[in-house]
Amino acid sequence: MISRRALLQGVGAPGGLPAAIATLAALGRLPAAPARAAAPVLPRGDRRVIVIGAGIVGLVAAHEMRRAGWSVRVLEAADRAGGRCLTLRAGDTVRESGAPPQRVAWEAAPHLYFNPGPARIPHHHRGILGYCRALGVPLEVQVNENRAALLQSSAGPVPQRRVQADLRGLVAELAAKGLERGTAEAPLGEADLEALRAMLRRFGALGADHRYHGSSRAGWASPPGAGLEAPRAMVPLDPRLLLEPTLWAGAAFAEGIDYAATMLQPVGGMDRIAAALATALGDALVLGAEVVSLRRTEAGARVRWQGADGPHEEEAAQVLVTLPAPLLARLDTDLPAARRAGLAALHYSSAAKLAFHCARRFWEEDHAIYGGISWTPGDATQLWYPSHGFHAEGGILTGAYIWDDELGARFAARSPAARAAAVAADGEALHPGLGREVAAPVSVAWSRLPRAGGAWAEWTAAQRRALYPLLRAPEGPYHFAGEYLSWLTGWQEGAVLSAWAALEGMG
Amino acid sequence: MISRRALLQGVGAPGGLPAAIATLAALGRLPAAPARAAAPVLPRGDRRVIVIGAGIVGLVAAHEMRRAGWSVRVLEAADRAGGRCLTLRAGDTVRESGAPPQRVAWEAAPHLYFNPGPARIPHHHRGILGYCRALGVPLEVQVNENRAALLQSSAGPVPQRRVQADLRGLVAELAAKGLERGTAEAPLGEADLEALRAMLRRFGALGADHRYHGSSRAGWASPPGAGLEAPRAMVPLDPRLLLEPTLWAGAAFAEGIDYAATMLQPVGGMDRIAAALATALGDALVLGAEVVSLRRTEAGARVRWQGADGPHEEEAAQVLVTLPAPLLARLDTDLPAARRAGLAALHYSSAAKLAFHCARRFWEEDHAIYGGISWTPGDATQLWYPSHGFHAEGGILTGAYIWDDELGARFAARSPAARAAAVAADGEALHPGLGREVAAPVSVAWSRLPRAGGAWAEWTAAQRRALYPLLRAPEGPYHFAGEYLSWLTGWQEGAVLSAWAALEGMG
Repeated sequence: MISRRALLQGVGAPGGLPAAIATLAALGRLPAAPARAAAPVLPRGDRRVIVIGAGIVGLVAAHEMRRAGWSVRVLEAADRAGGRCLTLRAGDTVRESGAPPQRVAWEAAPHLYFNPGPARIPHHHRGILGYCRALGVPLEVQVNENRAALLQSSAGPVPQRRVQADLRGLVAELAAKGLERGTAEAPLGEADLEALRAMLRRFGALGADHRYHGSSRAGWASPPGAGLEAPRAMVPLDPRLLLEPTLWAGAAFAEGIDYAATMLQPVGGMDRIAAALATALGDALVLGAEVVSLRRTEAGARVRWQGADGPHEEEAAQVLVTLPAPLLARLDTDLPAARRAGLAALHYSSAAKLAFHCARRFWEEDHAIYGGISWTPGDATQLWYPSHGFHAEGGILTGAYIWDDELGARFAARSPAARAAAVAADGEALHPGLGREVAAPVSVAWSRLPRAGGAWAEWTAAQRRALYPLLRAPEGPYHFAGEYLSWLTGWQEGAVLSAWAALEGMG
Repeated sequence: MISRRALLQGVGAPGGLPAAIATLAALGRLPAAPARAAAPVLPRGDRRVIVIGAGIVGLVAAHEMRRAGWSVRVLEAADRAGGRCLTLRAGDTVRESGAPPQRVAWEAAPHLYFNPGPARIPHHHRGILGYCRALGVPLEVQVNENRAALLQSSAGPVPQRRVQADLRGLVAELAAKGLERGTAEAPLGEADLEALRAMLRRFGALGADHRYHGSSRAGWASPPGAGLEAPRAMVPLDPRLLLEPTLWAGAAFAEGIDYAATMLQPVGGMDRIAAALATALGDALVLGAEVVSLRRTEAGARVRWQGADGPHEEEAAQVLVTLPAPLLARLDTDLPAARRAGLAALHYSSAAKLAFHCARRFWEEDHAIYGGISWTPGDATQLWYPSHGFHAEGGILTGAYIWDDELGARFAARSPAARAAAVAADGEALHPGLGREVAAPVSVAWSRLPRAGGAWAEWTAAQRRALYPLLRAPEGPYHFAGEYLSWLTGWQEGAVLSAWAALEGMG
């Protein structure tokens, strides 16, 4: 075991342990895991509240209000609850502004669905998972990292497993070489160095010589069978390939706190969460209710809205506004100009997705790829294989998940047919022949969805300092919530946490 | 991009790229993925074959023979097919030699099962997965690595995510320091070095200074919410902790080719595979048929066996013997002494497992752990959380998966009650209060299962050279197969590949 003293002495010396690490708090019991997230306890009473918008945030807020005995009406302009928590199935229609409607033309089956919005839930997003648990929404594993999925290199696609293993080998070998050369200068004793070296050997699958000679972690050149021949591991990739950013950037993707295993998904589609919340709300939820204006009154605020049966108006002491910022900015309200300008200034992502129906699950049958994500060389960016329905009759392949704004805008500007052609061409680089396997494309460019205003809010650091406190503050009878009013934008968990934060302010 | 010349020049110089990697084959198209595994095409005909043993290997072999029109009888001593492919449910009984029978005392529900033998299928085990596909055995994801699961340190359990992130940070920082000190000596230009540094920054989540200051990959000290406060990442662990083998060994576990995502499991229990194969065999499979002796005859071999209805004997031109090596060594046969001695010399693992019923899925409810594996400080070694039935009523927790021979033997020597007490005590270190949550233990020490002979074969390198060719060779009418006759011992895939190899020899 490396002594504390040796560590600290090693800090300044070449070859010693990293300074940033060595000067940390002393050993002791590790901090406990953070407490479980929970909705605030609301005062019980017969308040009346209007909630505008039945995305996850509005549904959750209304659900909690009703649990406290409040009288709630949720006004939702669309003919379904969920907002960006959306699942497409046979017969659904996507209506983008300025584009022809797209009808989902694949057959009906429980495993044939597409989540154009959120499509995965990290295991530590305890707010949204808590509602799944409370409302009985069945969950299953979503495969976010699959070592059989492909990354892009200038020499063609390379399986994740090979990149992961060879990168670890390369980095561990470089670290071991650094130790070798630093040994004489550093105050680390031989026992301490050996502890580090043992770690590096295991970390990188190095040989006893602390060099990386390849590893079965990368896959097999000749796989283990039942013949006389012993298996042989893949030889390491040329390091010039490993240093291509498309390989190393994609390989670290699932290290991110919101991308690491275990990832979950509702069985049958993400909208099962919104559907369960909507069911719990019963007739407190009014669909097809488009809010027209908001005005303060003596007792609170008056909401005018247009229903299927004509215009309505209704007053309440408090109104929770959960519209996305761009939509709220454009609504006829008596909100101060500074807030409205701030709402309009907040940028929303142009993220987009496209899915194909495939009669044959060629990724499983031909390539043994069960779920996970491959990276395409072109605009499509990511190709997602379904994490469910393994070996079933057909499947829905998410051919493109684009989140870069410029790529997303370019995608949105194309016709649905042109998008599909571009995505199929991109997928060919991963899976030659893909073009013959895919059919019935459907795409969603979030920037063109009239009731979304974009995929999610993207705060600049400067906006976080000045604008965020302004936009999240209540204003008289008006309270505000949405994924944009959280530090987890683009995640349903952000919507849940924002709903809870707004409830704190209303309670 | 690093030039080939710079790479090669860098080999000998301190600070250059690793020699073992730099001298590899030149760039070019990457090799294609290995072809899909397939059973051999057998000659059609009216042969008669007896298969001894209805584990995966015997079931698969018989299935292929019947597809070729051969007449097959499979003799299985147990009252169920599957061998070590075993699932326990409510009402089942485990009968170990020299131990009291254990009855599974939990209630009946589809998600309440325990796989004491194989419990996961790597996505590239295409033989066994092909049978799942052909026979319609539904599959789902098995979570082998969960970043919320726990590793052991002298300061208590640490979540995988924290160990993974901090190890990557430490190793990348050491590598970057090595480069810094080597720069002047090495022939790598600044552009090449910057490519390496950019990779290292991303690999280890290093700062712009190439030092690791902690990362949200490790988790949150203050998680992102919907308040004013920005989230704060966990501070790095003390490196003395990181250098404890219990942390770094467990953290590299799921890098192994047979442990990396995607891992799969049959919905409802591993024995669904054996059950599907058995159903396909119909009355070709005879359960409760204990083979008593094997003798060569002029036309082939005669098998004497004991059925429920008394003694039988039967001749066939070919007999495929799929018994585990220790059982075959002890059987009354006319096999040569050298083979019998070899069979007896092959060591079988004393691996063991123990499962509890838990009325409350405390690992999900209290700790947001959905599937995956934690490492215990004591003999229990690994604790597996179920990868299915999330948020359901109760669950089966695999409290111990022991594969070390010495620990397995110690476990086997204890009574079932003493095993459960030891495993619960071990689990307390991971989850204080676990002892109050667990009930109805059931354990399987494979060394004590009379029809298994142990968990799997463990070849020495010397045995692989001399004994393996001998044992896998057919002998007159006798052919041999089993996981032990493959390079994938301990995996169902090894059994499938051995079945196929034996069929090649019989065809």
